Amino acid sequence: MANDVAVPWSVEEFEARLRAKEKCYHIFHPFHIAMNSGQCTKEQVQGWVINRFYYQIMIPIKDAAVMSNMPDKEHRRLWVQRILDHDGLEGDEGGIEAWLALAEAVGLSRDEVISLEKVTPGVKFAVDAYVNFARTAPWQEAVCSSLTELFAPTIHQKRLDSWPEHYPWIDATGYQYFRKRLSEARRDVEHGLRVTLAHFKTRAEQERAINILQFKLNVLWSMLDAMQVTYGIGENNNGAIARMNP
Amino acid sequence: MANDVAVPWSVEEFEARLRAKEKCYHIFHPFHIAMNSGQCTKEQVQGWVINRFYYQIMIPIKDAAVMSNMPDKEHRRLWVQRILDHDGLEGDEGGIEAWLALAEAVGLSRDEVISLEKVTPGVKFAVDAYVNFARTAPWQEAVCSSLTELFAPTIHQKRLDSWPEHYPWIDATGYQYFRKRLSEARRDVEHGLRVTLAHFKTRAEQERAINILQFKLNVLWSMLDAMQVTYGIGENNNGAIARMNP
Repeated sequence: MANDVAVPWSVEEFEARLRAKEKCYHIFHPFHIAMNSGQCTKEQVQGWVINRFYYQIMIPIKDAAVMSNMPDKEHRRLWVQRILDHDGLEGDEGGIEAWLALAEAVGLSRDEVISLEKVTPGVKFAVDAYVNFARTAPWQEAVCSSLTELFAPTIHQKRLDSWPEHYPWIDATGYQYFRKRLSEARRDVEHGLRVTLAHFKTRAEQERAINILQFKLNVLWSMLDAMQVTYGIGENNNGAIARMNP
Repeated sequence: MANDVAVPWSVEEFEARLRAKEKCYHIFHPFHIAMNSGQCTKEQVQGWVINRFYYQIMIPIKDAAVMSNMPDKEHRRLWVQRILDHDGLEGDEGGIEAWLALAEAVGLSRDEVISLEKVTPGVKFAVDAYVNFARTAPWQEAVCSSLTELFAPTIHQKRLDSWPEHYPWIDATGYQYFRKRLSEARRDVEHGLRVTLAHFKTRAEQERAINILQFKLNVLWSMLDAMQVTYGIGENNNGAIARMNP
């Protein structure tokens, strides 16, 4: 608002500023750092998989909400791929099924995960905030909020690199989700970035885009905060599993 | 759902089961226990006041959303009192202003609080989940979700009893909000309870009411979880203030 008259950033600088938000990505959250460096207990890894499943199942719902606000068939044709990726098709399962394979690989039962019974309320509130934003914001803003995918390939690759060594008890068949997202996220973000760079033009709009990306970063970060309180971090567990369900 | 054919609870038992949910009230959250027993640092008390302000300002918005779904003038006439209580009138300030007086009494500036800049994302997500529920649920369900007020007089009285001793640095003029809510919450909950006991009739509906109350209890609990991660609890601070804003 203060910058309605400021000079807009060049497209290159705008993109660089979006990319610089990587410093707030949840890869730097203490729970995530512990998970990728082998310091999480089996219960903590399972807790992450259970809680993150709520995010996984809400993503295609979020994407459908975004599409419901997209007047342009060309954009919908690109965006629908996200839904197909997550929901899959008969005989060609998608990301949700791949996440359930991960859940089984870490020793959880499908039913336990699908029931959502162990999803921490704070995780639900954060994910629902994202879905609500996608429902009610102009579609270009919802697209902008998806740009955390800029940073996703790194986090998936890191899991693929470190988990087999740190958590030998996880069945290797569980890692298909992370592999699958490596290429999908790269493809998705190309479209999302193109929309964002074209739509947010004034300096005030560009700053709004940065704030929208920060909002989505907060969603991911806040999910891990809630898991940290529920499960603690590492053996020296400060979690409060019992307290949430007295 | 499993209980569509089960015998409904008597009105007395239904009310008793709603009241029994007090065991999940945020008065039992570790952050709140520490606050009421004098173990919070000044920064933690201030953090609670800053974050809780977001809840305070969203309450009349939530109540307006509930009223926007109430077809019956008689109910609206009762409900509007909540908005008047919080927003106040010219020359007769309400709960929001009383909260700002509390903020000043704990050493915060009004502008700092009103800016919402230090509100933790997890607190926002939890409060927004409550407001969204009130916007979209049938009004009787939104009324039911307000029933945490059954437990509010105890928590306010406890603050009035313990804070002056534990936190002598807080200016006594700041306690007006808690005193004000003692009687208001008792009056409000009489209406809310009457609506709830009359509306939820089958056993399945009664169980839904219990779940709705649990949802609201989760909102309050989750707010304190987020504050705990941000500010830690007590001198032995495990908080992560710096981490949220790298």
